[in-house]
Amino acid sequence: AIIVYRLPWTWKCSKLLMKFIHAGLNTIAMILAIVSMVAVFEFHNARNIPNMYSLHSWIGLTAVIFYSLQLFFGFAVFLLPFAPAHLRAALMPIHVYSGLTIFATVIATALMGITEKLIFALKSPAYSESPPEATLVNCLGLLLVIFGSLILWMASRPLWKRPPVENAKILRPIGATPEGTEVESTMTNSSNADKSDLRSNTEAARKQNIKFDEAGQRSTM
Amino acid sequence: AIIVYRLPWTWKCSKLLMKFIHAGLNTIAMILAIVSMVAVFEFHNARNIPNMYSLHSWIGLTAVIFYSLQLFFGFAVFLLPFAPAHLRAALMPIHVYSGLTIFATVIATALMGITEKLIFALKSPAYSESPPEATLVNCLGLLLVIFGSLILWMASRPLWKRPPVENAKILRPIGATPEGTEVESTMTNSSNADKSDLRSNTEAARKQNIKFDEAGQRSTM
Repeated sequence: AIIVYRLPWTWKCSKLLMKFIHAGLNTIAMILAIVSMVAVFEFHNARNIPNMYSLHSWIGLTAVIFYSLQLFFGFAVFLLPFAPAHLRAALMPIHVYSGLTIFATVIATALMGITEKLIFALKSPAYSESPPEATLVNCLGLLLVIFGSLILWMASRPLWKRPPVENAKILRPIGATPEGTEVESTMTNSSNADKSDLRSNTEAARKQNIKFDEAGQRSTM
Repeated sequence: AIIVYRLPWTWKCSKLLMKFIHAGLNTIAMILAIVSMVAVFEFHNARNIPNMYSLHSWIGLTAVIFYSLQLFFGFAVFLLPFAPAHLRAALMPIHVYSGLTIFATVIATALMGITEKLIFALKSPAYSESPPEATLVNCLGLLLVIFGSLILWMASRPLWKRPPVENAKILRPIGATPEGTEVESTMTNSSNADKSDLRSNTEAARKQNIKFDEAGQRSTM
């Protein structure tokens, strides 16, 4: 869901479709999170294990609560058509930051969960004797860290951002119908110029892009 | 060390002094990391506990190895005067990304270490019975997550970046002697314009800043 906007083949889709894919994938993830939380509580109750005592559970529940808030506000502000453009522009950096922070926190929670499970489940031979199972699961944990690092790399590269619609409008053949133009110009102003420089071939187009940048900056101030 | 460049009172210092503070704090942190790793191995050996079996130890050692590489390349590229400006500009986003990723990984490692320690150290009453010690240490773990989130927020706000030297040159009284001008213009080009709009009051200065932006983008391409 995080990297939906970073895949070049999706840049041809309309912005609304992209938003629906992003929101849809996150909704599926939220449903899976709720199902797994119910499973954990039922498992604990069936085995008479106390609930919510570990740091893993505290941080995990915090992450799920923030994730549901993220989903709610994302839906209300960016998907429903009521929020004005300046509000969307002001909240977008917060939405991006909290999304990535929740993602990193979920990875950390998973690593704590793996640690707990290996200690509790491996008894003879114990975790400390490094049976093959322990080595395998440790490798899975390392892969989880590598996965998280790659996603954060993709999400934080300005050049991998979806190109803003203004530039596309100038360079694309007539017939493409960009939407949400005003919001996008304020959201991506910090890297507009990088991309326009890569994409535009005429001096006129470049100058026009600089004007768009100025407008974008004024409206985010 | 991460937020050294984000503190407005430091923007008055020379860039070289800032770099020395950043490198110095990171060197101290590296020394502390080595001391604590030696302590862990000695503790394990004294108690006949195996070394390097847990996911915590694997990810922790990986983080320390990457941290030492980060320190070495940071020193070689950004502190020693041999690397050309375009190499510094090209490596700076990687340096920033890997610094923040190592920081997040270290937080995750600490959380796994806390989880392990609580499970191993609390026996009667056990961790699962939530003695006051467990609750206290869980709270410390939550604070660690909050601390990490705040640092990542401070480090990722473009407006909190050290203002580029060109803009400062225009607006500061004559007599300030900026250094490393060329490198800085290529490193901060993505948010130059935001800040110039905040700082410059005259149309002429604003236009000049846009020209600097264009130059900066070309040199990073």
